[in-house]
Amino acid sequence: MAKYILSDPNFSDGKRKEVIDQIIAPYRNRPGLKLIGYEPDADFDRLPVELLGRPEVMKDAILESCAKAYELIDMEKQTGHHPRIGAVDTIEIYPAKDVTIEECRELAEEIGKEIFKRHQVPVFFTGKNARRPDREGLTAIRKGNYEGLRDAVLKDPSRAPDLGPAKLHPTAGATIVGALEQHDAYFNVVLDTTDVAIAKKLASYIRGRTGGFTNIQGTIGLPNKHRRTGKDVAIISIEVSNPLQTPLHRIYNLLKAEAARYGVNVLAGQICGTIAAEVLVQTAEWYLQLEAINGPWDYKTQILENHLLELEG
Amino acid sequence: MAKYILSDPNFSDGKRKEVIDQIIAPYRNRPGLKLIGYEPDADFDRLPVELLGRPEVMKDAILESCAKAYELIDMEKQTGHHPRIGAVDTIEIYPAKDVTIEECRELAEEIGKEIFKRHQVPVFFTGKNARRPDREGLTAIRKGNYEGLRDAVLKDPSRAPDLGPAKLHPTAGATIVGALEQHDAYFNVVLDTTDVAIAKKLASYIRGRTGGFTNIQGTIGLPNKHRRTGKDVAIISIEVSNPLQTPLHRIYNLLKAEAARYGVNVLAGQICGTIAAEVLVQTAEWYLQLEAINGPWDYKTQILENHLLELEG
Repeated sequence: MAKYILSDPNFSDGKRKEVIDQIIAPYRNRPGLKLIGYEPDADFDRLPVELLGRPEVMKDAILESCAKAYELIDMEKQTGHHPRIGAVDTIEIYPAKDVTIEECRELAEEIGKEIFKRHQVPVFFTGKNARRPDREGLTAIRKGNYEGLRDAVLKDPSRAPDLGPAKLHPTAGATIVGALEQHDAYFNVVLDTTDVAIAKKLASYIRGRTGGFTNIQGTIGLPNKHRRTGKDVAIISIEVSNPLQTPLHRIYNLLKAEAARYGVNVLAGQICGTIAAEVLVQTAEWYLQLEAINGPWDYKTQILENHLLELEG
Repeated sequence: MAKYILSDPNFSDGKRKEVIDQIIAPYRNRPGLKLIGYEPDADFDRLPVELLGRPEVMKDAILESCAKAYELIDMEKQTGHHPRIGAVDTIEIYPAKDVTIEECRELAEEIGKEIFKRHQVPVFFTGKNARRPDREGLTAIRKGNYEGLRDAVLKDPSRAPDLGPAKLHPTAGATIVGALEQHDAYFNVVLDTTDVAIAKKLASYIRGRTGGFTNIQGTIGLPNKHRRTGKDVAIISIEVSNPLQTPLHRIYNLLKAEAARYGVNVLAGQICGTIAAEVLVQTAEWYLQLEAINGPWDYKTQILENHLLELEG
């Protein structure tokens, strides 16, 4: 069986084309690896990348790409709006096919150790590699962002990295590495209003920290556009850490009901990047109240692609 | 790129275990072929099989299996309620991965010719292999079923098979072979009533022939059970020939609205066998009004499994 993992490393340069090209280069034309996509964001000064590939090939490619980012990005000059702590901000690893989470955990461990060994960039482990429960998510690690962490790490022992001494690398900052069961879903809900205050209010209803869903940490209300009509709107931008457990239709329906309280309609859902078919099939399963002819609906045996992937394996 | 096709041959014995086992045997333990499933139905006296595999392997396996069926099933003794014309009733071929419909058409052509050559069983070509427009679907070919066709073929030249003389095989009847773009979806809609007359009425609203959807030929109203509650119910059993063009949510919503006219709720949708993920993702896309961040929702690039299948290819 061919093993595949998914990874979405994030680099802290969304502006300089020549830098971005060099960071992306190791992901191109590499047998056993597919660069699904990358979307540099100049406002965020951030480069998210999506990769699918065989574990060993992925490890080599990520390490080559990180070497470039550490060489070319100076965090003292970088000015992103997105939370981040280093030139390579996060490297998260997910099982995609015939790989256990334990194998992903080991791979993340190796990548973290190599990063510190080769570049002396301190490493924070997250997800299944977290040394402490508060580091299973990114929020506690990233508190205060690069600038805040740079200062805090010198005096607060609880902010110290998991690999490396208690100080950040002078230009590269620090890097977060870890394996997770499930790729986050990046889901925006589009409201038929330009009032961002309403979007922010609604965002607070679904965010775990303020009483919402445990699988939703990151949510923000932002001005945006409805793609289908070009209308100016406000969106709620949502990061769902386990969309099989907290499904998109449940979030969507809850926001629809709450938006009505403000006299606002929900216009659309927006999905950023790739998503596992199962997440969307789950929405169809709910909406059509699916059953099988002889029992409950079974995603594993009733979806053709699952059989195709098994045969190909 | 590894080529894969899908096929769902139907054999006319749903009762005799020893016969069913011999028909299924050629599909087991064959590298490059996966027997997705088979569900003998004693009432219908019919054995539907679902297969996924490489074209050449599939062709050999189907021909071996047909040889057994022609040897073991006598249509003069078979008594099924399901429309059928032979021991091997239909062999339909669909593209599953990296195969064109033209390649499927050629494969169906070869299978049909081999069947006539080896067994002198007359063949009717359907789908993309149809010699006449009225044979693109099964209804005209199967008119009168085995018994009706056996007599009609002797006197009505318009009922003659495409391969073979104008008479059926004395025990094996005739076989329908053809390539189709899209696997039918078998979709039942479960009504909260035991009144089958209402189900039949609603079935007529969606059937193409009586003013409904062009992609729905077969629909029936039947007594059944709701799997989730065990309640006795009536179902509308629907065969959708192109569920990407006539999506399940549109059928479901129309039936919901029409059922309300009779004071009846829709309890569930039931899916029989496998379905392409895209069919259900399309329902989610509609329900969540999906867009991508930078444009329209794109099934091809935004579903992880598509990238995985490309890498594996």
